[in-house]
Amino acid sequence: MKMKLLLSGLALALGSGYALTAFSQVKPDVLVKQRQAAMTLQGKYFGPMGGMAAGKVPYRADVVTYNASLLDALSRMPWDGFTESTKDLKDVKTAALPAIWNEPAKFKEAQDNFQKAVQNLVAVSKSGNEDAVKSAIGGVGKTCGGCHQNFRQKQ
Amino acid sequence: MKMKLLLSGLALALGSGYALTAFSQVKPDVLVKQRQAAMTLQGKYFGPMGGMAAGKVPYRADVVTYNASLLDALSRMPWDGFTESTKDLKDVKTAALPAIWNEPAKFKEAQDNFQKAVQNLVAVSKSGNEDAVKSAIGGVGKTCGGCHQNFRQKQ
Repeated sequence: MKMKLLLSGLALALGSGYALTAFSQVKPDVLVKQRQAAMTLQGKYFGPMGGMAAGKVPYRADVVTYNASLLDALSRMPWDGFTESTKDLKDVKTAALPAIWNEPAKFKEAQDNFQKAVQNLVAVSKSGNEDAVKSAIGGVGKTCGGCHQNFRQKQ
Repeated sequence: MKMKLLLSGLALALGSGYALTAFSQVKPDVLVKQRQAAMTLQGKYFGPMGGMAAGKVPYRADVVTYNASLLDALSRMPWDGFTESTKDLKDVKTAALPAIWNEPAKFKEAQDNFQKAVQNLVAVSKSGNEDAVKSAIGGVGKTCGGCHQNFRQKQ
């Protein structure tokens, strides 16, 4: 009985699209959607910090600490979505460049640089030193740009 | 010079769409995209755990611990995207029901229930007790379902 309740909760929760991801190989178009979702949310939480570092929005230390911690989680999410199965999709819009699969070591390095820069920002954001925090935000921005420059189609 | 480098990094990182989120009010369609991205990723990380709790995919304690910690971050992300400005959008596909804005206290309660269930799963996943973990996964599933049932159009 308890398991029945649990399963009906799960079915409601998963919806039709996601049931597949739990029980079988994830479809390439779902992988693309998931990795793009991670990038969208990286934009959501990095954007305001970028604005602060550039002096365009007021600096708020609490927002930086919060956003940095969420960006830390998000920085781990896109990469397993770049499987070979997503390489030559029709009917799916993606800006991913072939270099992702042609230069896997460089792509991995770019991911690592980004994750390290975010983890550095998380640490620095706890220091309360505004200049150091802004510089760490800039460091994250550079690693985003580094990856986009080589592995994403120009927008 | 350092600031110039920083800004060029930021510009690359932000892209055209997200520059706006840093410097001004976020557009309603971007808010919808961001909140849907959070739900997409909740599906990515909850899906396999749901499968484990249902006995459909092999149980792996390390995957649960990892996915639960990312789900913890994701459980905080969608809610600020449900602003009044996103209520009556043309040209944007969303399953959000009017109940979100008509019953804000209930909507908030559903969010809280979900976040508490996820935090419980994070704690229980460290215990190593498989039955307890599966039950905690079921608890999360129920709270997803609770929110979807009342606040999301049937799919």
